[in-house]
Amino acid sequence: MNSISDILVRKKMFENELPPFPEDGAQGLESLAKMIDHTLLKPEAIPEAIERLCAEALEYSFGAVCINPIHVSRAANFLKGSPVAVCTVVGFPLGAVPTATKVFEAERAIGEGAIEIDMVLSIGLLKADMAVEVMEDISALARAVHAGGGLLKVILETCLLTRGEKILASLLAVEAGADFVKTSTGFSTGGATVEDVELMRRVVGSPSRVGVKASGGVRSLADARTMLQAGANRLGTSSGVKIITEALHE
Amino acid sequence: MNSISDILVRKKMFENELPPFPEDGAQGLESLAKMIDHTLLKPEAIPEAIERLCAEALEYSFGAVCINPIHVSRAANFLKGSPVAVCTVVGFPLGAVPTATKVFEAERAIGEGAIEIDMVLSIGLLKADMAVEVMEDISALARAVHAGGGLLKVILETCLLTRGEKILASLLAVEAGADFVKTSTGFSTGGATVEDVELMRRVVGSPSRVGVKASGGVRSLADARTMLQAGANRLGTSSGVKIITEALHE
Repeated sequence: MNSISDILVRKKMFENELPPFPEDGAQGLESLAKMIDHTLLKPEAIPEAIERLCAEALEYSFGAVCINPIHVSRAANFLKGSPVAVCTVVGFPLGAVPTATKVFEAERAIGEGAIEIDMVLSIGLLKADMAVEVMEDISALARAVHAGGGLLKVILETCLLTRGEKILASLLAVEAGADFVKTSTGFSTGGATVEDVELMRRVVGSPSRVGVKASGGVRSLADARTMLQAGANRLGTSSGVKIITEALHE
Repeated sequence: MNSISDILVRKKMFENELPPFPEDGAQGLESLAKMIDHTLLKPEAIPEAIERLCAEALEYSFGAVCINPIHVSRAANFLKGSPVAVCTVVGFPLGAVPTATKVFEAERAIGEGAIEIDMVLSIGLLKADMAVEVMEDISALARAVHAGGGLLKVILETCLLTRGEKILASLLAVEAGADFVKTSTGFSTGGATVEDVELMRRVVGSPSRVGVKASGGVRSLADARTMLQAGANRLGTSSGVKIITEALHE
């Protein structure tokens, strides 16, 4: 595959010198609520808690709710006709399932009313330098999600990756047609850092081309502002209500 | 469903007084290696590490390797013709995917050579008192796994459950046809405890009927012995080599 060798060349270049931060890379607070994926991914969450999350998303005009696949149809019914999108996760949180399973999960979730799909990339294959397989995994998901009119985010799980792996994963995600790269699942050893968000934004370029979602550890308005300035244009957080409340009282 | 009301009655009874520890409930160390599921579920594990795990399983005569679904065909090829079983996980580690996804994962894994399937139950539905749905989820998996000649273990994720929920989950798993109940994923807030293993053994009865797998935090021969005495007849651990080496030097 020619594009893989091109990507590997760019990875080497970017390891030495990242592209400049794009002119339109930083975000202000104007559309803060719309940039928040209001998130509840705890395995013990009960259906009632999912409905409460959806009600909060309507009340605060969040862009989306982000929930586990088992709750998609419930959330989609709750939010039907509203501008709040249903986002769910596939291959989550380990990424270590076959592509066919991720595609099955994504197609099923879209059929049940999800419109944004956050997949975890195949971390072990990335670390084994199996770039072709990693890209094919993402490409298959991009095709499935786009065929359903949806939007694909690729979770890198940055806390487990070297700098070079973060650059490579971002390049592979873009090349494979992902709409967003996302830092973290929130279930591993760390969440979004300013450095990682800025690196991802510089690698993927303008937010008009590819989004960056900062997730994991975004708990306050100060955190949110820092991440948006570093290049995020989407925030995955369970602290959305607190963040918006802080913004209203500034 | 009649059996659900029976189960709820038994749950209430068992909350007041557990059945006695079965006469054949405790295990000695004779078949220690065979009772070990040699485990590597880290998302960042590379294929080479999976092959190393399989080689160790052959060398030490472990009962099974326990790996993520993405590695099943590789492990099955490596272990073909050997007595070491390939065990994988579905709906892992959150359990919060629809039954259809768990079934898809299980059938695919069995097709690729897995013969033991460790599923995570739907924790949020259990906590919402949706016992019928929890049991139907497990039943569907039991049918799929048994149709493929495999063996089903149900992970309760005990660290997230109340005592009553542990009892109910164990009863539901047995009624639904599971072959084992298992304590933990190793990815949540805690692993196997002596108290939980003993509770599960007392609820499910004789090991000739249903197995108990202790997993999460089993790191030494002392841990292994304690868990086997408490009623486990399978151990999920990444410390199998260390445990067997300790046993050989006793």
